[in-house]
Amino acid sequence: MRLEHPVSEHKPRGETIPSLAADTVRIIPLGGVEEIGRNMVAVEFGDDIFVIDAGFQFSEAETPGIDYILPNTGYLEERRHKIRGIIITHGHLDHVGAIPYIIERIGNPPIYTRRLTAEIIKKRQEEFASAQPIVIREVERGEAVKLGATTLRFFNVTHTVPDSMGVIIETPWGDVVHTGDIKLDHTDGVPSEAEVHEFSIFRERKVLLLMMDSTNVDRQGFSIPEHVVFNTLEELITHTNGRIILGTFASQLERLIHIVRVSEEMGRKIVVDGRSMKTNLDIARQLGLLKFKDGSFIQTENMGEYPPEKIIVLATGAQGDEFASLMRIANRAHKYITLTPKDTIILSSSVIPGNERAVQKMKDNLSRQGAHIITYQTSDVHSSGHGNKGEALWLHMQIRPQFFIPVHGYHYMLRVHCDVSIEAGTKPENCIVPDNSAIIEIKNGEKITRLPMKAPSELRVVEGHSVTELSDVLMRDRKALGQEGFAVVVVTVDRRTGKLHKSPDIISRGFVYLRDNKDLMDQTRLIIRKSVETSMKNPRAADLDSARDDLAEAVSRFLLQRTMKRPIVIPVIVSV
Amino acid sequence: MRLEHPVSEHKPRGETIPSLAADTVRIIPLGGVEEIGRNMVAVEFGDDIFVIDAGFQFSEAETPGIDYILPNTGYLEERRHKIRGIIITHGHLDHVGAIPYIIERIGNPPIYTRRLTAEIIKKRQEEFASAQPIVIREVERGEAVKLGATTLRFFNVTHTVPDSMGVIIETPWGDVVHTGDIKLDHTDGVPSEAEVHEFSIFRERKVLLLMMDSTNVDRQGFSIPEHVVFNTLEELITHTNGRIILGTFASQLERLIHIVRVSEEMGRKIVVDGRSMKTNLDIARQLGLLKFKDGSFIQTENMGEYPPEKIIVLATGAQGDEFASLMRIANRAHKYITLTPKDTIILSSSVIPGNERAVQKMKDNLSRQGAHIITYQTSDVHSSGHGNKGEALWLHMQIRPQFFIPVHGYHYMLRVHCDVSIEAGTKPENCIVPDNSAIIEIKNGEKITRLPMKAPSELRVVEGHSVTELSDVLMRDRKALGQEGFAVVVVTVDRRTGKLHKSPDIISRGFVYLRDNKDLMDQTRLIIRKSVETSMKNPRAADLDSARDDLAEAVSRFLLQRTMKRPIVIPVIVSV
Repeated sequence: MRLEHPVSEHKPRGETIPSLAADTVRIIPLGGVEEIGRNMVAVEFGDDIFVIDAGFQFSEAETPGIDYILPNTGYLEERRHKIRGIIITHGHLDHVGAIPYIIERIGNPPIYTRRLTAEIIKKRQEEFASAQPIVIREVERGEAVKLGATTLRFFNVTHTVPDSMGVIIETPWGDVVHTGDIKLDHTDGVPSEAEVHEFSIFRERKVLLLMMDSTNVDRQGFSIPEHVVFNTLEELITHTNGRIILGTFASQLERLIHIVRVSEEMGRKIVVDGRSMKTNLDIARQLGLLKFKDGSFIQTENMGEYPPEKIIVLATGAQGDEFASLMRIANRAHKYITLTPKDTIILSSSVIPGNERAVQKMKDNLSRQGAHIITYQTSDVHSSGHGNKGEALWLHMQIRPQFFIPVHGYHYMLRVHCDVSIEAGTKPENCIVPDNSAIIEIKNGEKITRLPMKAPSELRVVEGHSVTELSDVLMRDRKALGQEGFAVVVVTVDRRTGKLHKSPDIISRGFVYLRDNKDLMDQTRLIIRKSVETSMKNPRAADLDSARDDLAEAVSRFLLQRTMKRPIVIPVIVSV
Repeated sequence: MRLEHPVSEHKPRGETIPSLAADTVRIIPLGGVEEIGRNMVAVEFGDDIFVIDAGFQFSEAETPGIDYILPNTGYLEERRHKIRGIIITHGHLDHVGAIPYIIERIGNPPIYTRRLTAEIIKKRQEEFASAQPIVIREVERGEAVKLGATTLRFFNVTHTVPDSMGVIIETPWGDVVHTGDIKLDHTDGVPSEAEVHEFSIFRERKVLLLMMDSTNVDRQGFSIPEHVVFNTLEELITHTNGRIILGTFASQLERLIHIVRVSEEMGRKIVVDGRSMKTNLDIARQLGLLKFKDGSFIQTENMGEYPPEKIIVLATGAQGDEFASLMRIANRAHKYITLTPKDTIILSSSVIPGNERAVQKMKDNLSRQGAHIITYQTSDVHSSGHGNKGEALWLHMQIRPQFFIPVHGYHYMLRVHCDVSIEAGTKPENCIVPDNSAIIEIKNGEKITRLPMKAPSELRVVEGHSVTELSDVLMRDRKALGQEGFAVVVVTVDRRTGKLHKSPDIISRGFVYLRDNKDLMDQTRLIIRKSVETSMKNPRAADLDSARDDLAEAVSRFLLQRTMKRPIVIPVIVSV
């Protein structure tokens, strides 16, 4: 992929951002605090800026036709000489997805991350052929890395992909701690020994500021720990008689590694069906995170050589993605997999909001073929990678920060997280709920404030080959077109007589089905003729612009009145 | 509202449907068995057809620009002389919404329903000025109504709106029973005495066939009974200090009636903000279902005359509907209501799939203003009107049908409901999972089969003033336009020389923002010129059609290659 039309350099607008005082730590969440996704935070003090994560957000209904939404890095672009590095907490797209699109713009600083994450980033970078080489420094849990005058440390966090970590940035006023995405390994709400041990490091540390994942803090208690999911899946893989088709996210790498191990133990051959899953398992294999015997994995096309009860298919598309493996199976469009009533389908995933209809359709079509379907609604076959309120509370108790800024979530979730922090002992005046590009400062380690101005915050988006600023006009037009369609009216007019040369043409798409509406079209032609011939009598009409405006308005008004639809009307008047 | 372009009479296509044998009961679910919504079932035997419910479905992402989807009544239109009546189980739109659009087409048969439902139907019919008068016969629980040779009986069911009922159609081979939407009133899974009493009627009856709501049967156990929700809301209304703003569905009429009673007892003045809620409460008042003292309800604009702790606002828009009361409050666009941190907002509703983003945005904007928000996720302030698996199982045990057809739900849910029925004792071969317009026959009360052919099943939709058959082309175009936009290219060509008169015009909307893409436009003009001038050299070009096709293809290909976008390209060539 080659990026074209990179967005023009950021031009500062509005209020000037004051320069940073020597006694101040500045925190700017550049994304991920008004949404789930596009996570990025800048931490600035002295002459240094540290960037934590560089994720993107998948486009939703509000941004039709857009591929991804990026954090706005305008603030960093103006200060690229200060950037000492990007710390990436783990290898999910909402934490690494923006790297190819922003890294050159902020001066190609080195990336600090753990091994698996590094491989995921490198693999992805291969798709961007013309990009400058990136610099990655691998770090490890417990390691201390000196960047400029500052020491960074890393700690292990439980999430759903190996090598997930949190970061400690040692400032002169205490630690700035960012957990990344986090949940806890626990049994009935009692954190595991490993968790207790990992977070015991904070007993000896003075934490100035904590930033923590807020995705699920509005849920009560503790989330289902992944080991319960492992056990459930192990039971199912062991006791199911026929073929198993298991759908999950390719990003659920820890779970996939576990499933591979159990399947192998149970003598099932493993079929991996889906490119992203293959890529991730391949990286895990290369790094020694995934070990298996020769012959345990087989090709999809060779499935027929084994009895069904000796097969497990790991499939992508549990979200109802149109072209992914599970959807093709559901739609009877899969080259090698045809369901039978003896098959068991395990959907080891939740439904991402917005995908309900697609997943429902997939389940309907799978169940039409008689397969038995197991979902997270009736069995513990999935758990979120983000901790609930109980976990957040426990973590706050261990880290005991002086100041708190919730990240990773919608505003409402961040506000709930502030309440949790206060419940854990943080002073209410020491919690700030940020917006994207808010500039928050901690002065002399004593007082947290939010500046009245913001860092650049216009939405930046990826669409096809382009990185651009989101155009509201474009979005409004697409939404209108997607509901109402458009109509082009073409008129050839005699410039001397002001009369139409022939009957006007009307070309419409997405409006109403014209074949069924001949009367409407005939009446519209009359309206067109009348509008244009009236305009042409007017001496202003020489430039045709006002005639075009009048024509568009007359046709729009008529069509609205007759159909209650508001197609975009494009008037074409050719004078000959 | 005046309906235009009614869909043309149904013309039978495909296989002929055999005529009905004298020993057979025919069941045709015409909607609501592949989706939630547009519920309608036809029950036919002897010379009679009974129609149960006439709902519509709100349009979703798959049908952009469409307002509602209707059941296809083609089968009924051809047999309108046999229709003895429409039985409406309750007054929600997925059960009454289609009435104005279909009733004349099926011969304006009388409607049988209970009092509140009758009023809701009449009120709605007022919006259709040119419609024929409808005939409604009010029936009561326990009443026996003779229609032609057949007796119909009605029983009470628990749902979320008063006067919800199920129906018993007495056939020569036993009862055909349809529950309508149903849940149970219960305490910890033990149904109330009233429920036990109501369903005890089935002890003495021989039920040939049961049709039952499947919406929530894939959920375990019993649903939260409404009296728990009442108690939670009562606690909140009693113990909250400041103003309460309570958002719920206008269709939750039982809950609204209860809230009004409790609020009045606690001395709170009641403000109703939202048209649909006002309409429904007004109907309930007229029928004596809602009683209150003079002065208990106040106008929104008079709220300032009372202290906040003496006020409760009942607001529409808990689904994040753009122009409803709660959203206007969230967006600080409400004329009379401005939030303060002392306000408590209760969202007494779940989130309908597809509305997650809108509701999230609303919660974010409400919480930005500091109000305390209580949702069903953290408190029992809402419960579904549809029973879980435990309730379905209990009902099956009471009704003990010989045959079972699940209705109201997606295919997967219906299949799960069949499993529940079999668990309750129904023979597997006596359960059929239907599709919309499936023709199912019970012969001589002994054997259930599904015919190989279907009743007419094309999607019928309401769009603006029109009732039409859904056009796949239109939907495909709208989806494409909503993502990719369109470009009109206008060329004036000299018919003698085959040369362009002037530089081509390119008008695009929803494609890329042209201002930022001057180069792209210049290059596209070259492509246009080349394509047209090449075409015009060809003698075939006389009719311009092939020149247009070539031009559209050349431009589409070039734009795709340069932008990865596929706008719809409309070529306009005027030869002069």
